[in-house]
Amino acid sequence: MAETAPRLNLIILKAIFILLLGCSATNSRRHRRQPCKKLVFFFHDIIYNGQNSKNATAAIVGTPAWGNTTILSGQNHFGNVVVFDDPITLDNNLRSPPVGRAQGFYLYDKKDIFTSWLGFSFVFNSTEHKGTINFAGADPLMNKTRDISVIGGTGDFFMTRGVATLSTDAFEGEVYFRLRVDINLYECW
Amino acid sequence: MAETAPRLNLIILKAIFILLLGCSATNSRRHRRQPCKKLVFFFHDIIYNGQNSKNATAAIVGTPAWGNTTILSGQNHFGNVVVFDDPITLDNNLRSPPVGRAQGFYLYDKKDIFTSWLGFSFVFNSTEHKGTINFAGADPLMNKTRDISVIGGTGDFFMTRGVATLSTDAFEGEVYFRLRVDINLYECW
Amino acid sequence: MAETAPRLNLIILKAIFILLLGCSATNSRRHRRQPCKKLVFFFHDIIYNGQNSKNATAAIVGTPAWGNTTILSGQNHFGNVVVFDDPITLDNNLRSPPVGRAQGFYLYDKKDIFTSWLGFSFVFNSTEHKGTINFAGADPLMNKTRDISVIGGTGDFFMTRGVATLSTDAFEGEVYFRLRVDINLYECW
Repeated sequence: MAETAPRLNLIILKAIFILLLGCSATNSRRHRRQPCKKLVFFFHDIIYNGQNSKNATAAIVGTPAWGNTTILSGQNHFGNVVVFDDPITLDNNLRSPPVGRAQGFYLYDKKDIFTSWLGFSFVFNSTEHKGTINFAGADPLMNKTRDISVIGGTGDFFMTRGVATLSTDAFEGEVYFRLRVDINLYECW
Repeated sequence: MAETAPRLNLIILKAIFILLLGCSATNSRRHRRQPCKKLVFFFHDIIYNGQNSKNATAAIVGTPAWGNTTILSGQNHFGNVVVFDDPITLDNNLRSPPVGRAQGFYLYDKKDIFTSWLGFSFVFNSTEHKGTINFAGADPLMNKTRDISVIGGTGDFFMTRGVATLSTDAFEGEVYFRLRVDINLYECW
Repeated sequence: MAETAPRLNLIILKAIFILLLGCSATNSRRHRRQPCKKLVFFFHDIIYNGQNSKNATAAIVGTPAWGNTTILSGQNHFGNVVVFDDPITLDNNLRSPPVGRAQGFYLYDKKDIFTSWLGFSFVFNSTEHKGTINFAGADPLMNKTRDISVIGGTGDFFMTRGVATLSTDAFEGEVYFRLRVDINLYECW
């Protein structure tokens, strides 16, 4: 019996060594890039242009000296600030029943190409999802895909963080666009 | 003596097993929902309306085509952007000595009901608190309580994250409102 | 042989005790204040003033009732919202080759002193850095240094968090300023 003790001790020492590695990895905060939750949504933005007040879900509210708040300004809309309350759908159909609202603002921030900056929330209040996901980041919208940050969440998305990949699924002139949002959450509480 | 060694080994093995559970829980980033810090504040917003320039702590700075920057617009103020520098107090009295300033902006973002989106900071510089807490999120202000994200902090609130619960403690027409903010921080460094 | 086993067990027990301390420290989320990455950049803001449309990298897009979007308003520019697309350089020379763009907005939010609130991204697309760093926070710009939050990142800066220290490196009237940004990241994935 006493002869097996040293052998067991060796196994225990090995286990401790593995634990030390694991814990030190945790302490140094290098995390695994495996999403704890994946979600895909679409949202639909209809910009007020002076003639569509019934359907519009967004409006220009800020503009540089050379523009106005009815029509998106020249120079790739540089300086236009847009407030929106857009329906979120599960597929790419504007007529699908909305599962939530995308609410917040975007602004165009480059003169020689379309680029925007976004600060907004997904607000859910359905049987499937309750709570909000908050986003912020740069959207160089001529790129096929672009990444913004999930900076927080509440309710079902309590304290979450992650990355959302945006892609323009459709657009019609300067009145309508539809964004596909692939949300990858890496912190789930 | 040698007979106790195996028994001790069993205890050690159990301890290692508990450690493995604990560490793996940490690695998978499922955290306990126990706040590491709780704070309650009130802040007071007096909106400029063309006649109260001395007292006003906030002003409309963005508006849709159908509004102006002196009076909050129709359609539940949709599209109004407001910049503010509001006193923070420990109780619900506007005249109490402020312990800091709430600074940033909110915007109204729904046509058929009052809803807003907030981006702001609590800025403290007193003996009790030094530093800032940064907030962002959707505020469906007709709800009794609503949650926004604490997205970061500096100074005493270095790197913090959490959730803040807002409730409208009082309002007077379209000139004054007071928000109670229950801050629950879940990441403290 | 059997006599060394208890001594070894004592060592093992000590190791477990240390592990317990380490893991519990991790679980309570008290982290070391040691940056995992440090970066220093400068960015340059040239505000449109009605006469410099070729050089301007920023424009006033929001203003209170008492101001306009061509000239920064009185009362320490309270209520002015500025959208920018500023070059980022490695040194303090505006003519140095930009390594990225600082894109987003700031707003002035105090009547009796210069204070602003910032929401913006550093957008990199060079051989050295690819991806974005997202920032938000209060900037009491009369202070020599002030801290804002790094609220997220993408690409090379995937999921990062930290604190950025701003200092005004230079300014010329109300047309140009240059900020030095010392970025300290405390979460690196």
